[in-house]
Amino acid sequence: MAEEKKLTARSEDFAEWYNEVVLRSELADYSPVKGSMVIRPWGYGIWENMQRALDAMLKETGHENAYFPLLIPMSFIEREKDHVKGFAPELAVVTQAGGKELEEPYAIRPTSETIIYAMYAKWVQSYRDLPILMNQWANVMRWEMRTRLFLRTAEFLWQEGHTAHASAEEAEAEALMILGVYRKFMEEWIALPPMTGRKSDTEKFAGAVSTHTLEALMQDNKALQAGTSHFLGQNFAKQFDLKFQTEDGREEYAWNTSWGVSTRLVGALVMCHGDDAGIVVPPKLAPIQVVVVPILGGAEEAAVRAKAETVAKRLRASGVRVKVDGRENVTAGAKYYEWERKGVPFRVEIGPKDIAKEQLALVRRVTPEGEKRKAFVPEAQALDQLPSKLDAFQVELLHAARERRDANTVRGVKSIDELAEALDGGAGFVLTGWSGDPSVEAEVKERTKATLRAIVDEEFRSPTAPAKCVSGKAASIAEVAWARAY
Amino acid sequence: MAEEKKLTARSEDFAEWYNEVVLRSELADYSPVKGSMVIRPWGYGIWENMQRALDAMLKETGHENAYFPLLIPMSFIEREKDHVKGFAPELAVVTQAGGKELEEPYAIRPTSETIIYAMYAKWVQSYRDLPILMNQWANVMRWEMRTRLFLRTAEFLWQEGHTAHASAEEAEAEALMILGVYRKFMEEWIALPPMTGRKSDTEKFAGAVSTHTLEALMQDNKALQAGTSHFLGQNFAKQFDLKFQTEDGREEYAWNTSWGVSTRLVGALVMCHGDDAGIVVPPKLAPIQVVVVPILGGAEEAAVRAKAETVAKRLRASGVRVKVDGRENVTAGAKYYEWERKGVPFRVEIGPKDIAKEQLALVRRVTPEGEKRKAFVPEAQALDQLPSKLDAFQVELLHAARERRDANTVRGVKSIDELAEALDGGAGFVLTGWSGDPSVEAEVKERTKATLRAIVDEEFRSPTAPAKCVSGKAASIAEVAWARAY
Repeated sequence: MAEEKKLTARSEDFAEWYNEVVLRSELADYSPVKGSMVIRPWGYGIWENMQRALDAMLKETGHENAYFPLLIPMSFIEREKDHVKGFAPELAVVTQAGGKELEEPYAIRPTSETIIYAMYAKWVQSYRDLPILMNQWANVMRWEMRTRLFLRTAEFLWQEGHTAHASAEEAEAEALMILGVYRKFMEEWIALPPMTGRKSDTEKFAGAVSTHTLEALMQDNKALQAGTSHFLGQNFAKQFDLKFQTEDGREEYAWNTSWGVSTRLVGALVMCHGDDAGIVVPPKLAPIQVVVVPILGGAEEAAVRAKAETVAKRLRASGVRVKVDGRENVTAGAKYYEWERKGVPFRVEIGPKDIAKEQLALVRRVTPEGEKRKAFVPEAQALDQLPSKLDAFQVELLHAARERRDANTVRGVKSIDELAEALDGGAGFVLTGWSGDPSVEAEVKERTKATLRAIVDEEFRSPTAPAKCVSGKAASIAEVAWARAY
Repeated sequence: MAEEKKLTARSEDFAEWYNEVVLRSELADYSPVKGSMVIRPWGYGIWENMQRALDAMLKETGHENAYFPLLIPMSFIEREKDHVKGFAPELAVVTQAGGKELEEPYAIRPTSETIIYAMYAKWVQSYRDLPILMNQWANVMRWEMRTRLFLRTAEFLWQEGHTAHASAEEAEAEALMILGVYRKFMEEWIALPPMTGRKSDTEKFAGAVSTHTLEALMQDNKALQAGTSHFLGQNFAKQFDLKFQTEDGREEYAWNTSWGVSTRLVGALVMCHGDDAGIVVPPKLAPIQVVVVPILGGAEEAAVRAKAETVAKRLRASGVRVKVDGRENVTAGAKYYEWERKGVPFRVEIGPKDIAKEQLALVRRVTPEGEKRKAFVPEAQALDQLPSKLDAFQVELLHAARERRDANTVRGVKSIDELAEALDGGAGFVLTGWSGDPSVEAEVKERTKATLRAIVDEEFRSPTAPAKCVSGKAASIAEVAWARAY
């Protein structure tokens, strides 16, 4: 069968490997709509688990969900001048509805600041009505010329949080708090350890005062912007007349933040953990954590099937998400390939011999170096240990990703020549000093194709701050991370 | 404050009451986008609880979630001839994107049969690939001329299930099974007891062979279509080339079903249970089941606040969703009105006297006739009993709704004159015989504004089947329910 064809190796062509693995692990498929994809149940199941985890974290930090219109009057998007410049080229526009030309066209939301702050203006009168801490789970659309499954599609799913506050300090604290929530979510659930920092003015969100970013390193050493949290100042409040009466009776514009992560994170998961056999799903996000494959066909088939169900039931009772793959007409070998490609963390194989020996064959999707992939474990012990083995698997993925990130981060680079050399030599993040001059970003991009991913947060800075800008022309005002990026 | 103004009474103007109560209980608000509304956190919280419950039921019955594109090529919608006739007048159309005119315009999905079956055609080769049992939670758009919050809006949220089967029998069984899931969900969660049956050809879904419907009766005795489940035969499969190889090697078109419920159910909840004080949310769906109001301002304020928190903590430990409303600057009375308007099932009032007497004042949002709304209950007993009181509240709402539905259902009506009289006399559902002739539907609608809501399922039929059609012109082939409807 064509399906048993091996995937392209990552070392051979990473981009091709990525497309193949997304399609063949049935995460997503191309659709007849240009630039839009279909998220298939396996991919959507991972996204649902991400949603559930992050949604709980956002609720714990006081946010409520709501839903705002898909369509945004064009005049709204045009009000904030940087915002329209950033988004106008990517808009999909509804010009006809109900069989008629519309008097004013609507854009399909590329992001919802404008419509949401227009509503907040209606709801807020006094400081007592603040803060407003809302989030929405929604689809958005940005018409992209070159699309990639999950990473860049015309339509994507995301959550977008939008808050309004009575002071700049409170809003800035909110934007930073969310950065922390995102980081915790990415590390603890996706096993994706981002580098965090602020964007330069060139790279920040269209309409923001400042943008905090989470930058993750993929296996090809390209960076992926995994999430952003923006402090919007009063930019939108002023355009949408979002005012409130202060405690001492003055009238003031509110201070906003917005922040989002999207289905792009599924792509990040693939490119962070996958291998040449397929994707690897961190156990906490895996729709199926353990697949039980009964070895069929022998005289003892009924007993083998029964044992598989018993094992599954026992594991479910311990809170493990289990599937028994009892399909006929599919060989055990084909099942192994399929579930490995789909990244299920553990496989349990059960044949007549295992029943006789009261053992289970446990196969780990990936193993730390030096350990065996397959182990025969006494049944009772295997059942007891699987939940903690899943926990360990999750932690190991995070450690491996963090080690890889750090091993591929190059520090102490002092010139654009050295920067180019490091990147051509396969570096991921390259840290240098920067003067704050945008022309340096332009020059670096021109010469190396790398962009300034972040003015890195304290934790990620080098022990000794760089004295000079990478351009050599001026003193450094900040340490920054450069990378070629998705 | 204007907010304390009483709601219009239901008996005075039900439509006005409905709009006011939706706005003032903060379920939703009008938006600057014509025909689209904003779902505010209180309304969205109820919808989320509906989603969670129904999603679990759909997963238990073997369905998986996926996500398909928002945009549908116009040519897809045009392929199924009844489908395009039904939906073309309501489409919103994207004609420009990325700064250019599109070669082929896209419709924003009014429903997704066409794009989904086009994908299924790509995935299905053999009978082994069937059935496909998928569901998606999504926004859809139908450009309506006259909109009503939740009941009829240009954009709404829903779930749409789409399945493909190897035989007509299996697909018909699926459509019926879903009807049962919907009914159970509506009764057990929304306390909304629908009448079920099949739609006439006039009223069925555009493109379906047959439509099963759930019709709920609102307090103004108008019917509301609360959900539908369609058997699509091979209508779409033929247009989208959704074929499979049968077990004996023939090629056949697959058989489809589709089914959906939407945010309209929030409107149904309001119109089924609300009263002149506000909405009433069934406990299983209430984002807050118990609100604790400490009576502030006295010397013992700190003790009262502390007690409120202790009570809340105890209730949360029993799985109750609780909020302590400790706002200053809002009187206890204003809080009572607000939470009553929002339909929170129970209120606990705590003042210094209650602490001294080790009691709590429990106030039920609605009470069965003859019972007291407010009761002073020893604290320990109140805490123990609240979970079961919430259960009882839920059951009572269902019973009350069922009694009202049955009390307002008129049977044995033999002519269109009598039908008109019954409806003018305030009847809800009127059951009669029907010959199957669509011209009778037209005549009834013309004379009474009522439509044929359903060819009722066995359970809802009268003990003696009507012999004649309500038109008097022919024999009856089925008993049907008529009603004026939303």
